[in-house]
Amino acid sequence: MVAVRLPELVAALGGELSGDAASVAAARIDRIGPFDDATPSTITFVANPRLQPLLAASTAGCVIVGPALRDEAAARGPAIVTPDPYLYFARLTQWWAARTRVAAAPGVHASAVVDPSARIAANASIGALAVIEAGARVGEGAVIGAQCFIGRDAVVGAATRLAARVTLHERCVIGARGVVHSGVVIGADGFGFAPAEGRWERIEQLGAVQIGDDVDIGANTCIDRGALGDTVIGNGVKLDNLIQIGHNVRIGDHSALAGCVGIAGSATIGKHVTIGGAGMIAGHLEIVDHVHISGGTLVSHSIRKPGHYTGVFPIDDNAAWEKNAATLRNLHRLRERVRALEKSVRENAAADKNDTTGTP
Amino acid sequence: MVAVRLPELVAALGGELSGDAASVAAARIDRIGPFDDATPSTITFVANPRLQPLLAASTAGCVIVGPALRDEAAARGPAIVTPDPYLYFARLTQWWAARTRVAAAPGVHASAVVDPSARIAANASIGALAVIEAGARVGEGAVIGAQCFIGRDAVVGAATRLAARVTLHERCVIGARGVVHSGVVIGADGFGFAPAEGRWERIEQLGAVQIGDDVDIGANTCIDRGALGDTVIGNGVKLDNLIQIGHNVRIGDHSALAGCVGIAGSATIGKHVTIGGAGMIAGHLEIVDHVHISGGTLVSHSIRKPGHYTGVFPIDDNAAWEKNAATLRNLHRLRERVRALEKSVRENAAADKNDTTGTP
Amino acid sequence: MVAVRLPELVAALGGELSGDAASVAAARIDRIGPFDDATPSTITFVANPRLQPLLAASTAGCVIVGPALRDEAAARGPAIVTPDPYLYFARLTQWWAARTRVAAAPGVHASAVVDPSARIAANASIGALAVIEAGARVGEGAVIGAQCFIGRDAVVGAATRLAARVTLHERCVIGARGVVHSGVVIGADGFGFAPAEGRWERIEQLGAVQIGDDVDIGANTCIDRGALGDTVIGNGVKLDNLIQIGHNVRIGDHSALAGCVGIAGSATIGKHVTIGGAGMIAGHLEIVDHVHISGGTLVSHSIRKPGHYTGVFPIDDNAAWEKNAATLRNLHRLRERVRALEKSVRENAAADKNDTTGTP
Repeated sequence: MVAVRLPELVAALGGELSGDAASVAAARIDRIGPFDDATPSTITFVANPRLQPLLAASTAGCVIVGPALRDEAAARGPAIVTPDPYLYFARLTQWWAARTRVAAAPGVHASAVVDPSARIAANASIGALAVIEAGARVGEGAVIGAQCFIGRDAVVGAATRLAARVTLHERCVIGARGVVHSGVVIGADGFGFAPAEGRWERIEQLGAVQIGDDVDIGANTCIDRGALGDTVIGNGVKLDNLIQIGHNVRIGDHSALAGCVGIAGSATIGKHVTIGGAGMIAGHLEIVDHVHISGGTLVSHSIRKPGHYTGVFPIDDNAAWEKNAATLRNLHRLRERVRALEKSVRENAAADKNDTTGTP
Repeated sequence: MVAVRLPELVAALGGELSGDAASVAAARIDRIGPFDDATPSTITFVANPRLQPLLAASTAGCVIVGPALRDEAAARGPAIVTPDPYLYFARLTQWWAARTRVAAAPGVHASAVVDPSARIAANASIGALAVIEAGARVGEGAVIGAQCFIGRDAVVGAATRLAARVTLHERCVIGARGVVHSGVVIGADGFGFAPAEGRWERIEQLGAVQIGDDVDIGANTCIDRGALGDTVIGNGVKLDNLIQIGHNVRIGDHSALAGCVGIAGSATIGKHVTIGGAGMIAGHLEIVDHVHISGGTLVSHSIRKPGHYTGVFPIDDNAAWEKNAATLRNLHRLRERVRALEKSVRENAAADKNDTTGTP
Repeated sequence: MVAVRLPELVAALGGELSGDAASVAAARIDRIGPFDDATPSTITFVANPRLQPLLAASTAGCVIVGPALRDEAAARGPAIVTPDPYLYFARLTQWWAARTRVAAAPGVHASAVVDPSARIAANASIGALAVIEAGARVGEGAVIGAQCFIGRDAVVGAATRLAARVTLHERCVIGARGVVHSGVVIGADGFGFAPAEGRWERIEQLGAVQIGDDVDIGANTCIDRGALGDTVIGNGVKLDNLIQIGHNVRIGDHSALAGCVGIAGSATIGKHVTIGGAGMIAGHLEIVDHVHISGGTLVSHSIRKPGHYTGVFPIDDNAAWEKNAATLRNLHRLRERVRALEKSVRENAAADKNDTTGTP
């Protein structure tokens, strides 16, 4: 790509450009890079205060810093001062991606199979070998990747991008500005069966999935359709890869779930909740706003108070684990033994006291 | 959809229609809904006895109840009395889905790529951009969704439905009346490698996958082919999303596995087994019929007795967890300390006794 | 298939053919099978010494054994003696598969959508309805399965095989002789967001994925592209199904990860590491070479010493688990009680001693 000059970058993204004028004018940026690997053509950022002592020696073409590091950064060379360097970095990546990525061509690829009753915005892009069924709608500037499947009457909002091989089933809706990665399945049937003399009778899943605006969904993640009502994902929700969202789950706005998380059916997750990787939420329970669940934790009852919750067996070398695990299997009896000891010691003490008292 | 009248519904599904004749005749149902959200055009059901006190006030168009609630329900208005309301509800959803869903068109979509040697039943439906390889067979009334892949000599039984983007590899077989959701991969290679001087030598997986009748398989679930023999899934088995079934696993009839479960290679799971979400079964072990494994539990040895088994670290607020986890890492030593205390208290007691005895 | 004669097999794969000449000459092998299920036309192997007592009674057409069993095997009938029977078996499956599987036809299927600027080796095979974007390269003898997606400037090395429905995104690279199973997504965006006033600002993922030679990747596994640098998978790495590899992860050569494993972003895994099923590795940590993590274990801190590590709650019947789990939630207090007991017993002992000393 053509190298970027710093004034151009600040004109687009804001921030205060500092450093001596000649260095600033001379800087040519062709890469965003990590701090410890920055070259004279790299722009990088310092959000972690531990990096401060290393700042002076950095040969980066430009360093994005917070106000506290203004002077140190300027003494070193070109810098951009901004209240939140990490956020600035995030916006820089967006600006960079928009400059460097090849945009999807508007229009419907000749190999796509699109039902005549589907309504596709004129500036939307439908990739090769995509299938779009009757009554589906694709909004302004939306991108449907190659080999996607958009079911009957499904809706893709404006400027939402589906990578290759995404499935959005019948009547499911995703809002505007979302990003859906490859292999995602939205609107498969929820897991519902009634027991019937040792067999399972299928409960057809008649609801759908409603997904808000600005939602990101990672690769191979699944969001099931509701049984009667809908499964609902709020605005700004971020889902990583290989996540399972059961039927009739509700996830509040701006919650973020890491990879391999599972949310069983009919659980309600609040707003601004975070769940670490492989966290599992049992069905039919409620987690209020601003709860943070550690990775690997199984949530087996509702959480009604904001806070940080964990339930993970601590890792150890295997031999130590084996000994502790064996003891754990008898933990209840260990508690009984402690209780018995307490009783015994109490009685001994009482006996001693009596003994003392009784001594002439 | 056109509203349903209750006599029509009972004619199709059975059950005893009760309530005053005028209300029954007047009822027009256009929705199956949850009890707490039922309107005069909703049919709902009461299986949970806790809902009984709320029954009189419900404005539902019709309530499905068990015999115990016959009188209360009839006093309220239209009702269907049936021995198992939940099962009736399940069958109602099936009847409803059959009435309301657009049926797949029989025949092969013009864009599908079907080998001439494949045998496709005349009334089967092959979706857009599906690929069907040489020698594959698709049974009567089966539906192969858009963009599915059916490998060489694979078999899809009668009335089985594959959603869009399912993969059924070479020589794998699924029986009749199954439902397979998007992203499922049946017949990928099992994970088999022989160690060879620090490297891994691939063991080609020469078996296949045999799946019985009436099996449901959730989105993005994987069932690997056997190494020498086959991986075998019994009749009526229900698999949720994102499940991993390793090579040469056997799962007995009517077992049900929730989302994110993993079954390692060569494990044998009995009939009527249930495994909660993210339960993990180690390889080469056996679980007998009628075993129930809690979600999040790792099964590390065979289970030879029916029952309910669990192994999950209980969730707590993070600070409490940290303290307990730290103690857990020294649990073995805590047991030693209790043992030492017991010895000490025993000796003290003996000493006291001697002391007392020895007193003149 | 046509039955195989033993001299032909040994000519191809090595090993020493033993047993009486007439039996060896008469043997016709049409199946590789497990030891306990071997028929006169089956070739099988004995690597487990526990099988030795059963060897004499086996009716297998040929048994692959180590040098220690040479005499017992030869007394029974046809045998192949080789230093490592399991490794020999692995190579036998490869030879067998090459003989029996239908090879992919070289050339580009008429239904594939291939950009004219893509460079496809003449003897590579591009399956039906595959999509190959601009600038992508497919090496000598590589096989791209039906319905695969190969993004812009992506690279598939020589003799690497992609099963149906694999996604390899823009600029991602896989080396030679790899096997990638259906549903795999390589190069989806890593999960990176900067917090911004209660919302999440997307960090565009500008890196890619670099995968070495001889890498196997199981069905529906995801490997995310790096944020700035690349995600890197070494040579000879084996990944099972439904694995999540976060952005900027590095995995050293010849490591093997079982199904449902998750590796969070920026973790560095050494060489010759093994991780059992559903093992989870937290982000930004380091695991050195030759570490073995048990299935179901969450690794929450770096591991700097080779060895075997575990952290799993031991399974128990549910009633016992409930009691132990309840105690575990108060384990810290149990430790305090033991400490108090120790103090009390110490003081009692001291008091007794004083008492004794003080007795005239």
